[in-house]
Amino acid sequence: MAQTRRPLMTVDELTRFLDTDFAQIHTGGRTFHVEAVGPLTAHLRMAYHERHLRPGGTIAGPSMFALADLALYVAILAQIGPVALAVTINLNINFLRKPEPRDMIAECRLIKLGRRLAVGEVSMFSEGSDEIVAHATGTYSIPPASGDAG
Amino acid sequence: MAQTRRPLMTVDELTRFLDTDFAQIHTGGRTFHVEAVGPLTAHLRMAYHERHLRPGGTIAGPSMFALADLALYVAILAQIGPVALAVTINLNINFLRKPEPRDMIAECRLIKLGRRLAVGEVSMFSEGSDEIVAHATGTYSIPPASGDAG
Amino acid sequence: MAQTRRPLMTVDELTRFLDTDFAQIHTGGRTFHVEAVGPLTAHLRMAYHERHLRPGGTIAGPSMFALADLALYVAILAQIGPVALAVTINLNINFLRKPEPRDMIAECRLIKLGRRLAVGEVSMFSEGSDEIVAHATGTYSIPPASGDAG
Amino acid sequence: MAQTRRPLMTVDELTRFLDTDFAQIHTGGRTFHVEAVGPLTAHLRMAYHERHLRPGGTIAGPSMFALADLALYVAILAQIGPVALAVTINLNINFLRKPEPRDMIAECRLIKLGRRLAVGEVSMFSEGSDEIVAHATGTYSIPPASGDAG
Repeated sequence: MAQTRRPLMTVDELTRFLDTDFAQIHTGGRTFHVEAVGPLTAHLRMAYHERHLRPGGTIAGPSMFALADLALYVAILAQIGPVALAVTINLNINFLRKPEPRDMIAECRLIKLGRRLAVGEVSMFSEGSDEIVAHATGTYSIPPASGDAG
Repeated sequence: MAQTRRPLMTVDELTRFLDTDFAQIHTGGRTFHVEAVGPLTAHLRMAYHERHLRPGGTIAGPSMFALADLALYVAILAQIGPVALAVTINLNINFLRKPEPRDMIAECRLIKLGRRLAVGEVSMFSEGSDEIVAHATGTYSIPPASGDAG
Repeated sequence: MAQTRRPLMTVDELTRFLDTDFAQIHTGGRTFHVEAVGPLTAHLRMAYHERHLRPGGTIAGPSMFALADLALYVAILAQIGPVALAVTINLNINFLRKPEPRDMIAECRLIKLGRRLAVGEVSMFSEGSDEIVAHATGTYSIPPASGDAG
Repeated sequence: MAQTRRPLMTVDELTRFLDTDFAQIHTGGRTFHVEAVGPLTAHLRMAYHERHLRPGGTIAGPSMFALADLALYVAILAQIGPVALAVTINLNINFLRKPEPRDMIAECRLIKLGRRLAVGEVSMFSEGSDEIVAHATGTYSIPPASGDAG
């Protein structure tokens, strides 16, 4: 299945869409970056930044949640285009190891992309490490296709 | 069980502990407030604030995650005292309705408080409504009792 | 909300519906019983039976999963009637304590009942105990209303 | 990490251990088969059998839960040896597509194997298809090492 699903949006188009429609994610400094998209996949980076920290210099859980949630959203948008008002309906996250005080990388893969629901998983790593720091699985609801939802 | 578990910490003690040890949650403005604790329960408020918003004036998912996670942490600390370095190992959250542009209330209840693991559930409401906006279930790992971890 | 949602089906009607349409749950002996339904709630019993056991006389995880899943299904059916082909799309279960070698009781409460999705939580107890043995949260997809769903 | 974790148990040893210690999984017919183990991975098969069916010839959710739970257990045992009394503490499962009326294959991968907790994910397929039918993430608690746990 995955092989045939070329994304409809490029990294530049996704970045512009987020800048316009989700400017909130940049509040306090631009830290979320879409680095690549492929068939049913997305690769994001969360820059190391004071506002993502917890005591001890570790990355905060809510920041990792935000990264996972955004990675899923980007992977879905890339496939279905910017007509989306997709909303998260469920997200389950496991925190596995203490993150390093560094950028975090999120690798997202959609495992279902239906007309009404999309499901994906996200593995998060400290940059330069191949140990999974946190792993999330999430479901988005996709609204019925309408004209344009910008 | 619940009846016999009087909290070890008061709302004031918990608030001071968070101010000292989790000052990060106040970055950008003090919005998280512990309002009450009881046997295995905690009641928190997240004030309506620009930094918790998503397009359309709704509350952001990561902010609701942060509220749920904090409510669990507070409920656990209240029971076991400020010796804690408890960390979230799993959090599952269901987003049920669009939140109102208002304060959010979190009602947390621990359903297990073991020596190594604590599990609780959190129902979140827009202030003044009795419809659940989001519901979370989470597990914390409690480190082996040591001297002091404040 | 809950107050106004009187169930459309009685315990007897639900039991007959399951006997006809989900006879599989009775394979190996009738152990699942609907005991009560109310507005957005259902109360089920899983009789203690050899086929639900694990080594040491404890109840098997898959049996508790089956009980939780069925409790959600019954609570939904009770509200929307037997036109359903509702299917589970997500179920998250936390196992909290070792179950006693006894009947298990499931208390289910729907926290959302939309046109397309229903979400509920289920607390499971060993009969006669008020300690939660396992807790589940699940989401069902409700198919578009049509004439007949057998 | 994974590269260095050669399993301590072979498929034959795991099969014998399950036959002795978890004979319950074979109740009603031997349908669960360990097919391969590797570093932090396990590959299982659930044979198509009447007792795993739901109306319409599809595979029952509780059977898929049982398969996912067993795959995690086998992957953990393979790594730490038969000294285990590991128990599931959390399992989250997403049902993505209607399973075919065929054998199901489970591919499990541990993403954390700590001293106290192990976390893994399981992708389930209908035999001969590469579309994921269900996906689970689960956490096991590993008891403190002691002499023997048979």
